[in-house]
Amino acid sequence: MALKLYTNQQSRGVVVEWLFLELGVEYERIELAYNTTMKAPEYLKINPFGKVPTLVDDTVVIYELGAICAYLTDKFAEKQLAPTLNDSKRGVYYRWLFFISGPWESLTVDQMRGVHIQPEQKMFVGYGDDQDAYHALIQGLDEAAPFLCGSQFTTADILVAASLFWQLKIGTLQSHPSITRYLDSVKQRSSYQNFLALMGEASADSATN
Amino acid sequence: MALKLYTNQQSRGVVVEWLFLELGVEYERIELAYNTTMKAPEYLKINPFGKVPTLVDDTVVIYELGAICAYLTDKFAEKQLAPTLNDSKRGVYYRWLFFISGPWESLTVDQMRGVHIQPEQKMFVGYGDDQDAYHALIQGLDEAAPFLCGSQFTTADILVAASLFWQLKIGTLQSHPSITRYLDSVKQRSSYQNFLALMGEASADSATN
Ligand SMILES: N[C@@H](CCC(=O)N[C@@H](CS)C(=O)NCC(=O)O)C(=O)O
Ligand SMILES: N[C@@H](CCC(=O)N[C@@H](CS)C(=O)NCC(=O)O)C(=O)O
Repeated sequence: MALKLYTNQQSRGVVVEWLFLELGVEYERIELAYNTTMKAPEYLKINPFGKVPTLVDDTVVIYELGAICAYLTDKFAEKQLAPTLNDSKRGVYYRWLFFISGPWESLTVDQMRGVHIQPEQKMFVGYGDDQDAYHALIQGLDEAAPFLCGSQFTTADILVAASLFWQLKIGTLQSHPSITRYLDSVKQRSSYQNFLALMGEASADSATN
Repeated sequence: MALKLYTNQQSRGVVVEWLFLELGVEYERIELAYNTTMKAPEYLKINPFGKVPTLVDDTVVIYELGAICAYLTDKFAEKQLAPTLNDSKRGVYYRWLFFISGPWESLTVDQMRGVHIQPEQKMFVGYGDDQDAYHALIQGLDEAAPFLCGSQFTTADILVAASLFWQLKIGTLQSHPSITRYLDSVKQRSSYQNFLALMGEASADSATN
């Protein structure tokens, strides 16, 4: 099969699998184990970080979750999981893709490490500080409904919703009516139940409670 | 004018201006000052972080440097600054866009804050550690020549080269023959001289020496 996904069931690779469900596309799934096959020399040639996920499309290697998702979305453009190239909403789509992969990811990692932002660092820290990032998230969620780009469900929703689900679950994200409203819209997607199953969740409610 | 760029001359906004030069597209440039106009209530409505750059295309607001660049590239697709949707090289293009906006940016910010990665944190830190990220950069640069996607110069080159130039300049990036070879290719681009002028640099050599 042309499309190979190197992943681990307990990793952000599940997000790519959610996208594959939405696209209705077949792929070869290669499960790697932490610390062992993920750090094997053959795999390090493909992904120098020894991390998952990695997508291999024939001879092309793609890592970074955001890159894999953006790539698959464009490759299967007929599935309409992104605004078209000449639609200005594509700017909103990219804004969310890069927001979640850049500032939001940095914030999450800093929280996990217990690293706090000093006032004089806000200027060069991409997410400003915890409050700024949270505020930007809520402001963004309030701008469009039901989905991030309005009526069109896109890959940005998959990336953002998956991240919010997971952060509510591990307790690093404070709940908010705007988050609940947004995630309730995403729950209407039929692929969402399958995503929960991939995450090992029993029901639609357990991830956000 | 439909396209408005909110920026500051001493910011990563120069990267968007380099891209505009490559695209040959006109835009309205709005210079904001740090701590004052950047934190004014009207601007915070547009960009809740009070940071630059922000692109406004008519009614659509786009922030995050990577998002702005990806959006403009698609909007002016006829300028061919990215592989087309059905070209698998588009995966490589996105890989670099997200690599530089995610892990590489995090590494840079950690270096500026003096934050170091403990071995047990590598697993959830997107860039692994300093060595892994540097190694991934070099491995990536060695995979394709003269540019990141091979013979086609793309917006990924603008983002990556601008970042490397700047990091060599401030001394946070260790020089390497692969970096020098790559940046030498980028220097052949006529828009590069204009980019240096934007950065306030006198000549092509000063940024990498
Ligand atoms: N920046 C990468 C980060 C990938 C990442 O850190 N993956 C974790 C699992 S969610 C991993 O593979 N960790 C194992 C390790 O570092 O050894 C991305 O967004 O894809
Ligand atoms: N994640 C943002 C970061 C933007 C950013 O931090 N910009 C800096 C200038 S390079 C800024 O505006 N700092 C001013 C401040 O935070 O007050 C992006 O990539 O665009």
